[in-house]
Amino acid sequence: MDDKAGMAIALQEAKTSYSEGGIPIGAALFSKEGTLLGRGHNMRVQFGSPIHHGETTALQNSGRLPASAYKGSTMYTTLSPCDMCTGACLLYGIARVVIGENKTFLGGESYLRRRGVEVVVLDDAECRELMERFIQEKPELWNEDIGVTERVYSKEP
Amino acid sequence: MDDKAGMAIALQEAKTSYSEGGIPIGAALFSKEGTLLGRGHNMRVQFGSPIHHGETTALQNSGRLPASAYKGSTMYTTLSPCDMCTGACLLYGIARVVIGENKTFLGGESYLRRRGVEVVVLDDAECRELMERFIQEKPELWNEDIGVTERVYSKEP
Ligand SMILES: [Ca+2]
Ligand SMILES: [Ca+2]
Ligand SMILES: [Zn+2]
Ligand SMILES: [Zn+2]
Repeated sequence: MDDKAGMAIALQEAKTSYSEGGIPIGAALFSKEGTLLGRGHNMRVQFGSPIHHGETTALQNSGRLPASAYKGSTMYTTLSPCDMCTGACLLYGIARVVIGENKTFLGGESYLRRRGVEVVVLDDAECRELMERFIQEKPELWNEDIGVTERVYSKEP
Repeated sequence: MDDKAGMAIALQEAKTSYSEGGIPIGAALFSKEGTLLGRGHNMRVQFGSPIHHGETTALQNSGRLPASAYKGSTMYTTLSPCDMCTGACLLYGIARVVIGENKTFLGGESYLRRRGVEVVVLDDAECRELMERFIQEKPELWNEDIGVTERVYSKEP
């Protein structure tokens, strides 16, 4: 699986969410063999849900799977994963997390690495510009999604 | 909020899920003032979803809330929280996590404490007996839910 091709799908999801008036974060989960298991985007606005982030929605759209299906898998996500999505990747033993950008928000990258997950940051300009535009347009929605009252760059101490 | 009363609601949810043929883990989120924000149970079987654990379902059923609503809140959960649910509690800045039991599975308790969350373990016999019965009856379903191929007590190194 080519990381640029995987991220392109996650970015499509992010753009779809933006066009729906939602939070523009997307994700796609690929098996070790390069099969798309599931893709999705943040649905806080669309579904009124605090647990449907990009990565968790991609997991939900992958459906019920045995642990073996996640072995060697890669989660592509347009933004550095929050604590919930970090934990979701750990729960299912996802092997690699490929991140579009971590300039607008830095999530659980160091914790993922400490727990043995390979983390790759692509530093993709398109992912970053989309998030920057969204945060400028809807700062309160972004704060709500990341569980803060004032903008933060990271939630880890 | 009395911890025994909060846990009683989480346990009701766990029993409901068991009676539905689902995974008997329940949760309830209470505000600092003792208002029930949301309650729920694992819905892997009922909804075919890998992201609907007890705690995340309680969060979803609490709906969209500003960060201030979670301040000082308590999550009651019948079982020690998995990595995903640990991360969900961290994302929303939940202040306390009250756990029914951690004898059948030990989740992210130490990580929660390191990140400043108060963790209380009630060591409740009814919570433990329900999980033990379920794991004996449906070991493969339990392994699937916790992302393993063979039963483990903890996923942390
Ligand atoms: Ca959509
Ligand atoms: Ca139900
Ligand atoms: Zn997230
Ligand atoms: Zn969980």
